[in-house]
Amino acid sequence: MKKHKVGVVICVILCFALGSLGAEDVSETVTLHQQSIDMIWLLLAASLVFFMQAGFAMVEIGLTRAKNSGNIIMKNLMDFSVGALFFWAVGWALMYGSSVAGLFGFSQFFVGGTDPILYRDWMFQVVFAATAATIVSGAMAERTKFSAYLIYSVILSAVIYPISGHWIWGGGWLSSLGFHDFAGSTVVHSVGGWAALMGSLALGPRIGKYVRLGKTVTSKAIPGHNLPLASLGVFILWFGWYGFNAGSTLSGTDLTMASVAVTTTLAASAGAVGAMAISWKQFKKPDVSMSLNGALAGLVGITAPTAVVTPLGAILIGFIAGIIVVISVELIDKKLHIDDPVGAISVHGVCGVWGTIAVGLFGSTDSVRGLFYGGGFHQLTIQAIGVVSVALWVTITTGILFFVIKKTGGLRVTHNEELLGLDLSEHNADSYSGFQIFTTM
Amino acid sequence: MKKHKVGVVICVILCFALGSLGAEDVSETVTLHQQSIDMIWLLLAASLVFFMQAGFAMVEIGLTRAKNSGNIIMKNLMDFSVGALFFWAVGWALMYGSSVAGLFGFSQFFVGGTDPILYRDWMFQVVFAATAATIVSGAMAERTKFSAYLIYSVILSAVIYPISGHWIWGGGWLSSLGFHDFAGSTVVHSVGGWAALMGSLALGPRIGKYVRLGKTVTSKAIPGHNLPLASLGVFILWFGWYGFNAGSTLSGTDLTMASVAVTTTLAASAGAVGAMAISWKQFKKPDVSMSLNGALAGLVGITAPTAVVTPLGAILIGFIAGIIVVISVELIDKKLHIDDPVGAISVHGVCGVWGTIAVGLFGSTDSVRGLFYGGGFHQLTIQAIGVVSVALWVTITTGILFFVIKKTGGLRVTHNEELLGLDLSEHNADSYSGFQIFTTM
Amino acid sequence: MKKHKVGVVICVILCFALGSLGAEDVSETVTLHQQSIDMIWLLLAASLVFFMQAGFAMVEIGLTRAKNSGNIIMKNLMDFSVGALFFWAVGWALMYGSSVAGLFGFSQFFVGGTDPILYRDWMFQVVFAATAATIVSGAMAERTKFSAYLIYSVILSAVIYPISGHWIWGGGWLSSLGFHDFAGSTVVHSVGGWAALMGSLALGPRIGKYVRLGKTVTSKAIPGHNLPLASLGVFILWFGWYGFNAGSTLSGTDLTMASVAVTTTLAASAGAVGAMAISWKQFKKPDVSMSLNGALAGLVGITAPTAVVTPLGAILIGFIAGIIVVISVELIDKKLHIDDPVGAISVHGVCGVWGTIAVGLFGSTDSVRGLFYGGGFHQLTIQAIGVVSVALWVTITTGILFFVIKKTGGLRVTHNEELLGLDLSEHNADSYSGFQIFTTM
Repeated sequence: MKKHKVGVVICVILCFALGSLGAEDVSETVTLHQQSIDMIWLLLAASLVFFMQAGFAMVEIGLTRAKNSGNIIMKNLMDFSVGALFFWAVGWALMYGSSVAGLFGFSQFFVGGTDPILYRDWMFQVVFAATAATIVSGAMAERTKFSAYLIYSVILSAVIYPISGHWIWGGGWLSSLGFHDFAGSTVVHSVGGWAALMGSLALGPRIGKYVRLGKTVTSKAIPGHNLPLASLGVFILWFGWYGFNAGSTLSGTDLTMASVAVTTTLAASAGAVGAMAISWKQFKKPDVSMSLNGALAGLVGITAPTAVVTPLGAILIGFIAGIIVVISVELIDKKLHIDDPVGAISVHGVCGVWGTIAVGLFGSTDSVRGLFYGGGFHQLTIQAIGVVSVALWVTITTGILFFVIKKTGGLRVTHNEELLGLDLSEHNADSYSGFQIFTTM
Repeated sequence: MKKHKVGVVICVILCFALGSLGAEDVSETVTLHQQSIDMIWLLLAASLVFFMQAGFAMVEIGLTRAKNSGNIIMKNLMDFSVGALFFWAVGWALMYGSSVAGLFGFSQFFVGGTDPILYRDWMFQVVFAATAATIVSGAMAERTKFSAYLIYSVILSAVIYPISGHWIWGGGWLSSLGFHDFAGSTVVHSVGGWAALMGSLALGPRIGKYVRLGKTVTSKAIPGHNLPLASLGVFILWFGWYGFNAGSTLSGTDLTMASVAVTTTLAASAGAVGAMAISWKQFKKPDVSMSLNGALAGLVGITAPTAVVTPLGAILIGFIAGIIVVISVELIDKKLHIDDPVGAISVHGVCGVWGTIAVGLFGSTDSVRGLFYGGGFHQLTIQAIGVVSVALWVTITTGILFFVIKKTGGLRVTHNEELLGLDLSEHNADSYSGFQIFTTM
Repeated sequence: MKKHKVGVVICVILCFALGSLGAEDVSETVTLHQQSIDMIWLLLAASLVFFMQAGFAMVEIGLTRAKNSGNIIMKNLMDFSVGALFFWAVGWALMYGSSVAGLFGFSQFFVGGTDPILYRDWMFQVVFAATAATIVSGAMAERTKFSAYLIYSVILSAVIYPISGHWIWGGGWLSSLGFHDFAGSTVVHSVGGWAALMGSLALGPRIGKYVRLGKTVTSKAIPGHNLPLASLGVFILWFGWYGFNAGSTLSGTDLTMASVAVTTTLAASAGAVGAMAISWKQFKKPDVSMSLNGALAGLVGITAPTAVVTPLGAILIGFIAGIIVVISVELIDKKLHIDDPVGAISVHGVCGVWGTIAVGLFGSTDSVRGLFYGGGFHQLTIQAIGVVSVALWVTITTGILFFVIKKTGGLRVTHNEELLGLDLSEHNADSYSGFQIFTTM
């Protein structure tokens, strides 16, 4: 071998050695940074989504009567607490375990081990599962037996939610089909909304809610007792929604999070404006609780399409959601005579469906293109299939669930317990001790 | 060419090839990390600032009467919602579009496109714009027509705030002058404060607030109905202020954020202590709502100088702000007979001015050096120019605005509507249904 | 020198030059990213922990009577504000200054300078110090002189908390021993709990709390006036606890934060379930405030062991904490006749001890291995030593402190002031102006 060749060889080896030494060192650190950025983003987003539990509690408390506040606290605290334990034991496995024919997962029961990524992902998902569970609480407020509510919570968090969740987010059949639900208009909100519908139907209306005179049934308003708390709840939910939607990039380095935050903000704003506008037109005055629900409607509506629509698309989706929610609340109450004290069916169910469909209308990216952006009916059809499938799954399973509970332990408190208020009858509590409060009904 | 030269050349090429291959790969990732760190920081900070809306709502609700709570909710919900839509359409363009002679921006209307940085920056800015708008709500509480408030919100968010904002943060004439307002003592708070002053003057005091007996005018205290909610609001605001101030580094890798968090904490603490101390001295007892306002005063005061002062400087600025706010509230109420139900003019206007001036007194960095740190009157003069310019801009424009509203649609509800409460008269709502509440006045 | 050697030398130099040029550039940025990730993580975690102040305030307000709410606000606002100022001046120095024989720190008084890391660390620590201080407020509620409370706050934040903190987190003697308290079951919570016990003892019970009939002493329940606010407080605390525990990795790239978030979630959930279960069994109905305290008990219990236990371990620790807190509250009230209005001694003191001991039982890592995981009594003994030392330190010092206050300025308001309520007597305030409220007792 010629000496100059030796020189080159030495040089190349040095090149590799020195380069790889430094590069490896740096690149290990850079890999750790990638993991850390993802980790921080998802844990903080999960914390924000957790805080939405406070928002749901405040909204539900605020929009119902004082005599049931303690019961609502217990339901909201416990659907998370019990739900989290069962989502740890079973729910995660059914949602994100190895897929069985695209229908459900089946591995990783009792989440454990040493992988921080698994812990991170469970943490981010458990707060979504709990959100689905807690939505139902509002529609079933003021008349549900607490023990029945506990059982329902367990089944929803452990089985029903995870299975349809698997179809869409766990690599199941709907995701294979190309169904797009970025942050859960269907996975979370419409699941909660459909369960809320079935729960409300199974329970029947609160005492005195519908008064029959001859052939006419009149719906009597049962006003909530604390609008300030309800508004606080809405602000908390909106705040938490930045974790809910922007966190659903599932990566701290996916810069889409910025447009997600923007479309979320605009849709919520337009939802509040839409609901205010139509309530102003219909009732001659801008309605407070309708406007609050309008903001939530906009948020629920944008949750599926948030990452694939333009700001203008987001404004339209939100504004329409705000109008839908007012019409839906009126329809469900005044025409269908289904008693949903906080409007959960309309906000989460109806607007969850709307948001999912809106993906097929307003989607404007290469991979998700809706009808209005030249994508034809392709995406729209897939979205509709998803909506119908999940609707069937949830109404049937929760239908059976509430039927079984009704026939065994009972779903509803007694007439007297309801009149007395669930705080006293179910928990021996007085939520506002010392305050002079006249009970409606 | 000699062979050994060939060897060297090959080697150099290899060096570049291998090195750049790895380096490019890593450096692309590192660049993405830079963007991600900035992105996460600003989006989370923006979320925190958004949450301040809840804080403002709770403070204003808590410090006013129960009969107007629903109206306050609507104002706070809507100044954000309507404000965000208009800040998207117009406001951003006037504030951050290409500068026209340093006076206002004029491009990027209807923010859109595919640049995540633009979305990120809009998101961070819209929550500041909404803060300025919502400040005014408190000073105009309990007597403003809701429709008038909506119109005011649009104009402030879309035109007035963005233009003076452009002068300072958008590359306009005041920034060229060296005016320093790190997080918005002037840009946000004093703009809100001056508008609050004009709104309050245009409206006149609430019925029964000032009682004339002969030549003496007595100011009657109209106590707020919910101190716990007011205190919650202050804690939420303080919490959100970490996003407001520390987020204003505008970069996730600007480590100044640490001293910003510290000076913010110390100034707020000193503000609370200062207000408590002087209220204790003046009223013989440590006053709750004054102490709460003292914490806010400290926060407003430190907002401009937070990044350029020492911890001790921050404590002094905050403590003085706490004293100023008590004196100012008393002066505005008892001497000037301007009715500002929550003290917004004093907290945001007067202390916003104080914080801006404090930059010229306590600035201790090379680029921003104040009078007390050997910088002479240079910075102080610039700060004073900024204060006066913005004061003139806002008082004149909002003065015209409120005058026009007054002469057209009307700014104030009727005598009877005010007595009845705005919840019922403006929204047909009852914020505390069932509670026995005796209305003051 | 042969030419081919020259070639090699040139080549090597080039290798270094080019390589180090790029590498240095990238590696500087990577180092900055490391600092930024840590910084963002700790500042956001600190903000979350700060927000816990709102949680403590709401819990304490909710679980006590309306006539003392304003006083509670003042205590919670001021223990943070005054505490922060003194923790800046003195506390940090005693906790993290250069160690004097492992007993206390003594340098870095009046934290200042230009090091962002120092500011970051102070920021993260001051919110922990304030948490310890504020815990005591609940046990001393409804009867403590405000001025006495101020003095106590200063001493605790400036001296007592920092010194035992130094033993464990500041490199003192307990840390040398191998004592493990990840996020402060002992450092923060049991310090607060022991001080709460001494404060409560020094004060004696509220008027009318214990009624003596012959030889029997009956404990009279004095119900809180606002369960919704109390529940909001618990949700806020739980939310903030993600900053408290996960932030205690003290580094944004320590991926342990994921399992910390998970064990925190599971323990809190299990705590709520545990307290609900035992209260259901004991009182025949699932108790609201016990369940809320159960969640807090689980959180306090997991705070020390959160990073070294399995999910199953966390569930057991939390569940047991939930049971302990109910038994402890009953015992302290009904048997020991110590009046702790919100259960702070049980939640923070007793469960803080339990969590610290639990490290020695459930620790499952190589470095911290508990009795149940094959570690024998080694870790358990160290944990017990820590518990006892801190208990002695805090009970003795706060005992002396409260004794001195009692003998000088006085610790308790007068009989009439207490009956009137501290809002009026101490602050001339009415927290719920206009509401009809019947005062218990």
